[in-house]
Amino acid sequence: MRVALDAMGGDHAPGPIVAGAVKAAAANPDMTVVLVGDQAQIEPFLVDVGDLRARLEILHCTQVIGMDESPIVALRRKPDNSISRCWQLLAERKVDAIVSAGNTGAMVAGGFRLKLFLKNVRRPGIAAVMPTINGHTIILDVGANISPKPEHLFQYGLMGAIFAKYILKKEQPKIGLMNVGTEDAKGHDLAKDTHALFAQSHFKDSFIGNIEGRDIHRGVCDVVVTDGFVGNVVLKVCEGVFEFIMKMTGKELMGTLQNEKQLGQVALQNLVKRYDYHELGGAPLLGIDGICIICHGSSSDRAIGNALNVAAKYVTARLNEHIVEELASNAALIAEESAG
Amino acid sequence: MRVALDAMGGDHAPGPIVAGAVKAAAANPDMTVVLVGDQAQIEPFLVDVGDLRARLEILHCTQVIGMDESPIVALRRKPDNSISRCWQLLAERKVDAIVSAGNTGAMVAGGFRLKLFLKNVRRPGIAAVMPTINGHTIILDVGANISPKPEHLFQYGLMGAIFAKYILKKEQPKIGLMNVGTEDAKGHDLAKDTHALFAQSHFKDSFIGNIEGRDIHRGVCDVVVTDGFVGNVVLKVCEGVFEFIMKMTGKELMGTLQNEKQLGQVALQNLVKRYDYHELGGAPLLGIDGICIICHGSSSDRAIGNALNVAAKYVTARLNEHIVEELASNAALIAEESAG
Repeated sequence: MRVALDAMGGDHAPGPIVAGAVKAAAANPDMTVVLVGDQAQIEPFLVDVGDLRARLEILHCTQVIGMDESPIVALRRKPDNSISRCWQLLAERKVDAIVSAGNTGAMVAGGFRLKLFLKNVRRPGIAAVMPTINGHTIILDVGANISPKPEHLFQYGLMGAIFAKYILKKEQPKIGLMNVGTEDAKGHDLAKDTHALFAQSHFKDSFIGNIEGRDIHRGVCDVVVTDGFVGNVVLKVCEGVFEFIMKMTGKELMGTLQNEKQLGQVALQNLVKRYDYHELGGAPLLGIDGICIICHGSSSDRAIGNALNVAAKYVTARLNEHIVEELASNAALIAEESAG
Repeated sequence: MRVALDAMGGDHAPGPIVAGAVKAAAANPDMTVVLVGDQAQIEPFLVDVGDLRARLEILHCTQVIGMDESPIVALRRKPDNSISRCWQLLAERKVDAIVSAGNTGAMVAGGFRLKLFLKNVRRPGIAAVMPTINGHTIILDVGANISPKPEHLFQYGLMGAIFAKYILKKEQPKIGLMNVGTEDAKGHDLAKDTHALFAQSHFKDSFIGNIEGRDIHRGVCDVVVTDGFVGNVVLKVCEGVFEFIMKMTGKELMGTLQNEKQLGQVALQNLVKRYDYHELGGAPLLGIDGICIICHGSSSDRAIGNALNVAAKYVTARLNEHIVEELASNAALIAEESAG
């Protein structure tokens, strides 16, 4: 298996990015990582990797899209940027997956420009896995599509359910629609129309209806469907609340505990290791013909390593083939709806 | 000061609701609470209140709107419901403030039907106070207006800034616009148009531009402006993440601490007391001519007491007079914008 990694993407690239590639190559004997970026900047981090060097290739390119650059403008002005080069490798089937912790907008726009979509997919969406009281749930879209149509959200539900089934190993995944209340008639037009689309589909038995913000972490469903604006805000709010509560809990514990302050610190560190969003493995852009993983800009080497591991996992699980099958059986419904 | 309290609103009404009124009456010698609801159900909770009874009036009414009822339908079919009776008291100037833990949609719709708005206000919005790393911030709207126009969001910013100044005591309140990235050009049309409105207003020095979900709890601004759909989801997600992390932290601490497990529990209980959303004092519906506080359906007696206390505080601080002044000085801009 071959994975292209945007070596220049991320707040501290290329150091932790290349270190993550080394980790993943060591953990996956079948994986070759193509490090896409400035060879002169990448090489120094590869001097001590021994035999792994054979499975750590470099594809040199001269340009980088900055984290704050306008995606569309940057993609046009910098044809030799590392993100576009990754996409090109995927389009040419030279890699099975691509991974970047760079400019998210550029990563998404790069794929949209090439229209490298799975059959029947209208718009790919970014899916984020979140911890819940009883396991994990997947929420999508978290930022690829901020003004979606109901049929896009419907497809996110289908793709998310396939992800939940084959990756999260949920027997019969349940889909919930993010809304401001649980009653069927709640919400704006997008929510109401999407609700109707699910309710009349052959997916209706998997659809539990509207859910509210507090239901995500209660684990009431396996797939949370929402537009990219709400999903992006939700993901980052979770990150902020976690950061906030960890700080407050730390203060409170240090003020309350007497002889076991150190054990209290250990407990908090364990929680951070388990739930810190900077340490998670990245979010797949579902609907792309190939595996595409988007990582947090501040990803550590561990996070990048995790992202490469999950990319490999999705390839092995044949995630995309299952998505194509599912979409084929719902294609008629979607065509009908969007004609109406 | 006179405050009407919907005695029938809330998951466990009227018990904790009336108990909250008793608490608030005891704490505020100048306050009279008008308990609006079924006299026979309210009376039993007032037998032991002694002298306070003189400041705890009952306005009998025969109907209640259920928590899950459709607001518009229920308001029409049940003319003698406790929420409408509260609004009527406010409209007739018989009370200075109204408080309810009942059906939020009905509470909002009740005020919208009467058009009991402050001068120049287009649409009232629900504001929620949230804790941050360095104090508090206010986020609005959290559910009154799920498909707002840019000028509504602009007014939320102005009203929120006045709230931050006179209630949260922020010298020069900073306003942020909830978005999916901090760059000016980010977001959907609503976000872009609202950004432009702030940037060209005389409020532009208070406007810090776009913020992301993780910035709320980092306290980067004093007022977070967003539409009612996003705000509602954010508020409930915060509730869910807090609940989730408290559970996980409890488990982790109990597994790690040895002799000080009990102190660990005390620390967590302190955090819950401080940050639990069920215990907070309710959210004001800003833009109403009068004070209107909307409480969480599962509000405890303490939460209701807090809500009555803050209602009194807003009346005393002449919050609405300050809002009217501020809106008058921005009225020209808003009129111009919405004509365009």
